[in-house]
Amino acid sequence: MADVPRYAYLGPEGTFSEAALRSLPETAGAILLPYRSVATALDAVRRGEVSAALVPVENSVGGGVDSTIDELSSGELLHICREVLLDVGFAFAVPPGATREQVRRVAAHPQAEAQCRRWIAENLPEAEVVPAGSNADAAAMAASGTENLDAAITSALAAERYGLKILDDDIHDHGHAVTRFLLLRRPGPPMPRTGADKTSLVAWIGEDHPGALLEVLTEFAVRGINLTWIESRPAGGKLGRYCFSIDCEGHIADARVGEALMGLRRICAAVRFLGSYPRADGAEPTTRRGTSDADFAEAAEWLRRLRAGIVDEEPTEP
Amino acid sequence: MADVPRYAYLGPEGTFSEAALRSLPETAGAILLPYRSVATALDAVRRGEVSAALVPVENSVGGGVDSTIDELSSGELLHICREVLLDVGFAFAVPPGATREQVRRVAAHPQAEAQCRRWIAENLPEAEVVPAGSNADAAAMAASGTENLDAAITSALAAERYGLKILDDDIHDHGHAVTRFLLLRRPGPPMPRTGADKTSLVAWIGEDHPGALLEVLTEFAVRGINLTWIESRPAGGKLGRYCFSIDCEGHIADARVGEALMGLRRICAAVRFLGSYPRADGAEPTTRRGTSDADFAEAAEWLRRLRAGIVDEEPTEP
Repeated sequence: MADVPRYAYLGPEGTFSEAALRSLPETAGAILLPYRSVATALDAVRRGEVSAALVPVENSVGGGVDSTIDELSSGELLHICREVLLDVGFAFAVPPGATREQVRRVAAHPQAEAQCRRWIAENLPEAEVVPAGSNADAAAMAASGTENLDAAITSALAAERYGLKILDDDIHDHGHAVTRFLLLRRPGPPMPRTGADKTSLVAWIGEDHPGALLEVLTEFAVRGINLTWIESRPAGGKLGRYCFSIDCEGHIADARVGEALMGLRRICAAVRFLGSYPRADGAEPTTRRGTSDADFAEAAEWLRRLRAGIVDEEPTEP
Repeated sequence: MADVPRYAYLGPEGTFSEAALRSLPETAGAILLPYRSVATALDAVRRGEVSAALVPVENSVGGGVDSTIDELSSGELLHICREVLLDVGFAFAVPPGATREQVRRVAAHPQAEAQCRRWIAENLPEAEVVPAGSNADAAAMAASGTENLDAAITSALAAERYGLKILDDDIHDHGHAVTRFLLLRRPGPPMPRTGADKTSLVAWIGEDHPGALLEVLTEFAVRGINLTWIESRPAGGKLGRYCFSIDCEGHIADARVGEALMGLRRICAAVRFLGSYPRADGAEPTTRRGTSDADFAEAAEWLRRLRAGIVDEEPTEP
C-alpha cells in the first residue's frame, strides 16, 4: 500500500476542493485526505505526508483566497504543478423525508449565502440562515439536525456525501461562478512545457518608490507577455510595503518568460518562482511579433556576430 | 609613404571639420584630405582611399546634419569609431591692411550668419552679407576680393589659413555653440569598451502603428539605458514612415545594451548597428540598480538553476 499516492485537500469531505481534486485523472485510485485549513494541508506536503495538496486560490465572485496567497509567498516554498477550474454551483438540500414547507433554519457557509442571496430572499423569506464553517459542514449540520437545522445551502457533492436530498440545484445568483484551485507539491523541476502554460511568481519591491509597479509590469509588457492575474498583499507587516502575486502566460522554458524573470530578479528586492504549469483552460498565449523563441535565438545570433565584428550587409529599407 | 594614414574630412580646407580632425591624436603626421561633401568624403572611405572620414552630425544651435544622418542610415554601411566635440566660435576677419571702416560686403556661410545675427546688427548695420558655401569659402572669397567682398565671418582656422586678419573673435550670439563630429570607417569589430561609451544605431519601424516609438524607447528604458540623442527621418520616401537615429549610453559589449539591441532586432522591421565608441565628453553612464553586467550574470545563473529544478530556499522578505 506504500506506493498508493496520497493527496491533501482543503476539507472537510465534500468541499469543492475535494471535487476539484477528484476531477484530476492522476487522483484516480489515490488516497485523498481532508485537512481543516490551507496551512495544514500545505504543511502535510512540506512534511512529505502527501505528494501534493489542492487548495482554492481565487473565486470569480469572492476574489483571492488570502490564506493561500500568503502561504505561497511567505510560507516554506512550494511549487504549483497544476491548476483546476471548477464551476461552483450551490444546491438547496434537506434530510431524506423532509419537505420544503418544513424549513425554518438553513445552514450555509457565508460565501455560499452571499452567492445565493437573491434566491434565499425569494424562496426562503421566513427562514433563518445559520453560518457553517464550510459547505461540507453545512451539509453535515443539516443531516444531523444540529442546532435544529432542517436544510442546507451546499454543494451537490456535499449534499450527496451527507445523505441529503437536493430540492433545488444551481441556486446561485451569478450564472457562472468559477473557483480556481492550485495543486502544490514540493519544489523541483518545472512541469514540462505544453504550449498552453502559466507561470506564477511573487515579486517584492524593495525601495518604496512611485514607479515600482510600472517597472514590474514593463518587464512583462516589453516582451509581449500577458498577465492573467495580479494581486498585491502587504509585505513585512508594514503599511505601504507590498509584494505582488503574479500569474503570466507562458512557461519558464520560453525565452521571453525567462528574460522577464531575469529582469524582475535584477530590479526587485526578491522574486520567488512558484512554478510553470499547464493552463486549466488550455488557452494558448497570444504573442506579439518578435517574441517567439525563434525570434530570440535569431536576435542573439545577430548580436553575437556584431560583437565579433562580423558584418552582414543587409537590406535596411523594410 | 604608403603606410602614412590618410583621413578625409568635409572640406574645403579650414572648415571646423578639419579643426576637429586635427584635434585627434591619431591624425598627427597623417595626410588629411578635404572633400566637397559628406557623401564624397564617406565614399572615399568606402572605396578604401582613406582609412576614415570626419564629418559633422549635429550642432547645438542648428540641430542635426541631415546629409550625414541619411548617409549613415541609407548609404553603404559605415561604423563610427570616434566622436569629437568642438566649440564653434566665429571671427570677423579682413584682408591684411584693410580696416573695419572700409567694410561694405561680408561673406558668411548662412549657418554662421544665423549664429552671429545680433553681432552683425550691432557692428555692421550698413554692410551687406553675401552667402558662402562654407566658412572656409567665406574666408577664401574675402581674401581674393571676389564679388567686391572685403571681409568674412568665418572660423579662426579658416581666417588664418587664407591669410586674413582677425579683428573680432568669438562674435557668435550664443555663448557656447558646439558641433559634434563623427569619425567613420569601414565596418568591423567594435572599438574596445572604455566604460564611458556610446552606441549608435538606426531603427526602422515596419508597420505604421501608434505605439511603435514608445515600444522602441521602452526597450532602452526597461534596461536603464539613457538615450543621448534621437532624431526621426523619413524612410522609404513615404510620408508617415520614419526611421529613428538613436545614440544611447553604453557599449555593445555591455549586457544591458546587448539585450536592448536584441529587443530592437526582434520588434523592429530593421536595425542597423553603427558602432560603439568612446564618448567625447568622457561621461560615464548613470546606471539604475539591477542593470550592471554582474546583475545580468547573477540573474542568468538564477534562471538556469530554476529551469534545471535546482531550488535554493532564500529569504523572501527583503
